[in-house]
Amino acid sequence: MNYRIIAKILGWVFSLQGIFMLPPCLVGILYKEYFDAAVYLVISLACSLVGYLLRRIKTKSTTFYAKEGFVAVALSWILLSMTGAIPFVLNGDIPSYTDALFEIISGYTTTGSSILTNVEGLSHSNLFFRSFSHWIGGMGVLVFILAILPMTGGSTMNLLKAESPGPSVSKLVPKMQQTAFILYAIYFVMTLIEIVLLLLGGMPLFDSLCHAFGTAGTGGFGIKNDSIAGYSPYLQIVITVFMFLFGVNFTFYYYILIRKIRDAFKMEEVRWYFGIYWLVVGLLMINLISNGYAAGESLLHVTFQVASIMTTTGYATTDFNLWPEFSRGLMVCLMFIGACAGSTGGGLKVSRIMLWLKQVRKELTQQIHPRRVHVIKMDGKEVPHTQTHSCNVLLMTYIIIFIVSFLLISLDGFDTTTNFTAIAATLNNIGPGLNMVGATGNFSAFSDFSKYILMFDMLAGRLEVFPMLLLFYPSTWKK
Amino acid sequence: MNYRIIAKILGWVFSLQGIFMLPPCLVGILYKEYFDAAVYLVISLACSLVGYLLRRIKTKSTTFYAKEGFVAVALSWILLSMTGAIPFVLNGDIPSYTDALFEIISGYTTTGSSILTNVEGLSHSNLFFRSFSHWIGGMGVLVFILAILPMTGGSTMNLLKAESPGPSVSKLVPKMQQTAFILYAIYFVMTLIEIVLLLLGGMPLFDSLCHAFGTAGTGGFGIKNDSIAGYSPYLQIVITVFMFLFGVNFTFYYYILIRKIRDAFKMEEVRWYFGIYWLVVGLLMINLISNGYAAGESLLHVTFQVASIMTTTGYATTDFNLWPEFSRGLMVCLMFIGACAGSTGGGLKVSRIMLWLKQVRKELTQQIHPRRVHVIKMDGKEVPHTQTHSCNVLLMTYIIIFIVSFLLISLDGFDTTTNFTAIAATLNNIGPGLNMVGATGNFSAFSDFSKYILMFDMLAGRLEVFPMLLLFYPSTWKK
Repeated sequence: MNYRIIAKILGWVFSLQGIFMLPPCLVGILYKEYFDAAVYLVISLACSLVGYLLRRIKTKSTTFYAKEGFVAVALSWILLSMTGAIPFVLNGDIPSYTDALFEIISGYTTTGSSILTNVEGLSHSNLFFRSFSHWIGGMGVLVFILAILPMTGGSTMNLLKAESPGPSVSKLVPKMQQTAFILYAIYFVMTLIEIVLLLLGGMPLFDSLCHAFGTAGTGGFGIKNDSIAGYSPYLQIVITVFMFLFGVNFTFYYYILIRKIRDAFKMEEVRWYFGIYWLVVGLLMINLISNGYAAGESLLHVTFQVASIMTTTGYATTDFNLWPEFSRGLMVCLMFIGACAGSTGGGLKVSRIMLWLKQVRKELTQQIHPRRVHVIKMDGKEVPHTQTHSCNVLLMTYIIIFIVSFLLISLDGFDTTTNFTAIAATLNNIGPGLNMVGATGNFSAFSDFSKYILMFDMLAGRLEVFPMLLLFYPSTWKK
Repeated sequence: MNYRIIAKILGWVFSLQGIFMLPPCLVGILYKEYFDAAVYLVISLACSLVGYLLRRIKTKSTTFYAKEGFVAVALSWILLSMTGAIPFVLNGDIPSYTDALFEIISGYTTTGSSILTNVEGLSHSNLFFRSFSHWIGGMGVLVFILAILPMTGGSTMNLLKAESPGPSVSKLVPKMQQTAFILYAIYFVMTLIEIVLLLLGGMPLFDSLCHAFGTAGTGGFGIKNDSIAGYSPYLQIVITVFMFLFGVNFTFYYYILIRKIRDAFKMEEVRWYFGIYWLVVGLLMINLISNGYAAGESLLHVTFQVASIMTTTGYATTDFNLWPEFSRGLMVCLMFIGACAGSTGGGLKVSRIMLWLKQVRKELTQQIHPRRVHVIKMDGKEVPHTQTHSCNVLLMTYIIIFIVSFLLISLDGFDTTTNFTAIAATLNNIGPGLNMVGATGNFSAFSDFSKYILMFDMLAGRLEVFPMLLLFYPSTWKK
């Protein structure tokens, strides 16, 4: 294990955290919350100092392997969370460090699950930092470092691999740094467009920034107790559209940028994503209308809610916990599917669902025609066996983490549906679940022990299981 | 598709069904239920006649491939169920054919889920036939045909493959017929020992037969409304032990028979099965005692209930639906693990769980040491890649069936836990679930539509998914 290079990367993460604390500090000054602003400034300086010291460490070799990549990414995220929780405690909005840690992990991992019962009671700087953490976490911190940092060595791919969601990481351009830069540029411009559209609809600037950050990172922290329900239909539709757009594989936008429009719309995953979205919207509409819901209002709610859950954002305009049982069940299924790989969304990802379904179809055909050669293709290309295998093992690992977490939090004694959907909502980085943790509920009633389990799940979900698991796997630390 | 050979096999199944109807007919005569006896006799004769006619079909070739194997097995089980449901309707105990079909599919698939609200209201012949269907379904009908029938052609393995549970079918001896015969001999003798032990404990002969059949097939139909709760601790312990024993891979007993005691106890799956059983018993005991339950009584209940659910039998001595949330959750997890491959139990099977866990461990190690060669072993032998792959695809197929069934039955509007555990209980061939379908509840409230979904799940669970799916797969029927 190349400890020096890991320390150096953590140094960069500390320095970045120092920078991340400045915007909320500025917000504090603007809203005359001087104490909050001071807290953010002090922590910013402390982080910068530690970062500076760590970055001075001399490294003999700058190459690192998959193992270092996983460990560096996992530790970076834990570090960001541990320091990010401090302001909430110091300025008194969330007195318990466990709760503050839960809240900021939920922020960075773009989950959006909250332990707060009254969001509107937070200071502006804290509200801003919560939403801002979604924006940072959505695209990834290491990706950002890669974008701005001239990392030497050809193995930086291992960092991107560990932090980026999806079964395979494709470089858009041969150079890693350029790929990371393009991704961030698309991300930045799309966020900007959303902010402008929200402002045009009459949303105040502060609200527009927070909601655009929450949408872009597919996070879901609201700044109102009723999430998005209080805003106009225009604003709800803008957010619906952008939630959906941020759930699309970013390669799609890159293709459009370089005018490969046909290639963009040929992307199988994007087509499936689109198809699943409208299929679920259709099924929900039929179920709701046949249960006496008004068609027009339902369409607004359904298109919003499906985009929110499928992209794992978690904003709400209505409480789908109160929908009929079939609709509730369908929403729970949707939680697991998630958005596209290479987007900011969580969940298992549409491309993995596709790979699994294609394997099932292949197996069925193989049973009937044992002698024919069967190949699994994606976008016309054969999917290498190692990739389907990794994808399958991820499913098993995911299930194991799910079951163990479910059992552990059930020690608190809440009902089965609450426990099941609490894990589904955190491991898939969604936010709300059903019953006690439904759209109008929150996670405050869980014990500290359960909260730590859920925090682990949020991180495991965001980093796609392996980096977090390897951290606790003894062989990782052996020579 | 070799339709003639399939028709011939179905002929044998009809003939067997004719024979299976005779014991309940005899029971009817003994208990002076002459009308019931007559019904069973008439259907027995009708089945024998149809069977005779079908068996007279001339076949040009007697070889058949995997495809024919799957179709023959799926159709045989559907046929057995469709004819087996008739007596219940004709003698008036279950007036609805859908309900009767549900009951007998639950019987043959050794599930034990019931639509009856008052089991004690059934006639003796009907009670006997319900339990007897468990015994037949436990070992499998096609296996029985193989045991008694000199099938020509070397491809009879395909029949056994489609009907036997587990990721791989191992012939105990080179000859298929002999293997099937040995399996049935072990099954028969063990059932006999249980009957004797139950009689020694003072259980009436009729009850002993029914319960031994239900235990041997890991079925779970009781003949009392309170299942096994009313019997003495001695009888409960006998049933506990035999439920556990029938969940063991039958290869274990074969090794013991041929005096390879060391090989028997070296079987990894049996060790894991044993380990999981006692781990779960331990966890439940801790949870129950710390929630104020009495230790002695709990131990009796816990050892019974864990054996009952893990082997997917489904008998009950207490209502675990009322246990604390952790214990309930643990029981739900146990439902999915199931018993050993090559036993009469259902569920995903311990050996599959092992294969998945081993793959996860391999993947973790591979991430750390990408250049080392990693091999998955079972009982010291390398597991071929095709086997792990099939095992993985089964998991996905299983999940898809689970989700689709869950959504469809949730249209009835019952609560999420009821729906989830109803599918878990039927797809894993267990019997009871939680809430409405808990140990003291039943499946009568579901709509006919949902009942057909659950019937499909019971058959899909018993035949391990693929035979039932291939029946509905268009390519199966194409030339």
